[in-house]
Amino acid sequence: MNTEPDLLARTRIVLARTQHPGNIGMAARAMMNMGLSQLVLVAPDRYDAASGHPQARAQASGALEVLERARVVATLEEAVADCAWVVGASARPRHLGDEPLTPWAMAERAGALPATASVAIMFGNERSGLSNEELLRCHAAAIVPANPYYSSLNLAQAVQIFAYELRKAALPEAPRVSLKRDHPLYAPPSAADMERFYEHLERALLQTGFLDPTNPRALMRRLRTLFNRAQPDSNELAMLRGVVSTMEKPKERRIGTKKPAA
Amino acid sequence: MNTEPDLLARTRIVLARTQHPGNIGMAARAMMNMGLSQLVLVAPDRYDAASGHPQARAQASGALEVLERARVVATLEEAVADCAWVVGASARPRHLGDEPLTPWAMAERAGALPATASVAIMFGNERSGLSNEELLRCHAAAIVPANPYYSSLNLAQAVQIFAYELRKAALPEAPRVSLKRDHPLYAPPSAADMERFYEHLERALLQTGFLDPTNPRALMRRLRTLFNRAQPDSNELAMLRGVVSTMEKPKERRIGTKKPAA
Repeated sequence: MNTEPDLLARTRIVLARTQHPGNIGMAARAMMNMGLSQLVLVAPDRYDAASGHPQARAQASGALEVLERARVVATLEEAVADCAWVVGASARPRHLGDEPLTPWAMAERAGALPATASVAIMFGNERSGLSNEELLRCHAAAIVPANPYYSSLNLAQAVQIFAYELRKAALPEAPRVSLKRDHPLYAPPSAADMERFYEHLERALLQTGFLDPTNPRALMRRLRTLFNRAQPDSNELAMLRGVVSTMEKPKERRIGTKKPAA
Repeated sequence: MNTEPDLLARTRIVLARTQHPGNIGMAARAMMNMGLSQLVLVAPDRYDAASGHPQARAQASGALEVLERARVVATLEEAVADCAWVVGASARPRHLGDEPLTPWAMAERAGALPATASVAIMFGNERSGLSNEELLRCHAAAIVPANPYYSSLNLAQAVQIFAYELRKAALPEAPRVSLKRDHPLYAPPSAADMERFYEHLERALLQTGFLDPTNPRALMRRLRTLFNRAQPDSNELAMLRGVVSTMEKPKERRIGTKKPAA
């Protein structure tokens, strides 16, 4: 996947001793949804390197290409030998070293590594997670900050969260919080256009009697607050002007007045 | 769950017309992992309100309590009537209004609402997602920024990501950005109140002739987008209702009619 951002291209997901082939398929789907493509399976249960497993294929849905390219290896060492950074995804803190990273801190650190650095995120099996032996092979541990009363995530769900944070860190546009459309057609009106709208609205609301002519200011100020918060674009402002115009001077519209076809 | 942070206690997950009961169970597990407990099912397939479904129970794993407390309703309206903010989780942008929010922007906005404001995150069915009709009931749309070549997430995986972002926004140690007024007097109107406003506005605009009676939908949709973006509080909504009332039936106001001081 050459078109994928660098961080996604150099990060692999390693599933150790997975018990349910369906989870392998679901993890493949979660990976591909987030633009990850390298899956490595360490000694999976009931999963044949040559033919895979029907449950895995069913759960992979449209991500068969990730599943079919998955590497099946016998040991963790083989899975991560060429990796510059190996992170163990842990269900609970093991106190084997540093406090575990959050998924987003993990993704940020992975993103800060040079473009040649391969990264592995490793997940243990469904029942017991990563063994202490496996965690010792990791350069860092990361943990999803889950409900302490029920912290055990389904394997593919955990893969989904880590893959999602990797994608957020990888996409240049990700950290931006977009509060407003940045559609190319969006053209913000000028302050002067907005003023003309408010003047128009005030005239119309004096006419309908909504505003008290002796004291129109307080309600106009509240209406301004509301419309300023909405930040109408130019098209929307034109629509609002249309509403105000028909408030001042109703249009004669009748159902069925369309000119009949000759 | 009294010990859970406020945002998680007042946010519900709404699954509309779910086809596979197993996904309901998996979603319940993803929710409980993240500390969410309110699940509402709108007209689920093959899921009995009284007895549930064995696949749902199997996939819920340790989250049976979320599943057993799930509310099953016939319509979307029932599911969200008391909600101050209804967000539609969309698989792809529909161009019905504003650009969809990212999951983290959605969570930040939800977290910035007052403690009394119920929030609904709504997910459509597995095959087709939310219908346009369902999306129109939403005050905002949110989307997981997925791989454009394979953007369709499994339903429970999508629930997982939104629930995860809600948890991040809810936890005191997570980075908080206050995007919205947190004035103590701010009281968000319910979805039902907003609907009544839109109905009132539509009646008035048919009367002024702004809306074409043969096709009022398109312009109403654009007006909804605009007012949903503004997120009026209850006082502002009452003011807007006042504006609309005087559009329908102008008040007789005259300058200088105040009773002169005796």
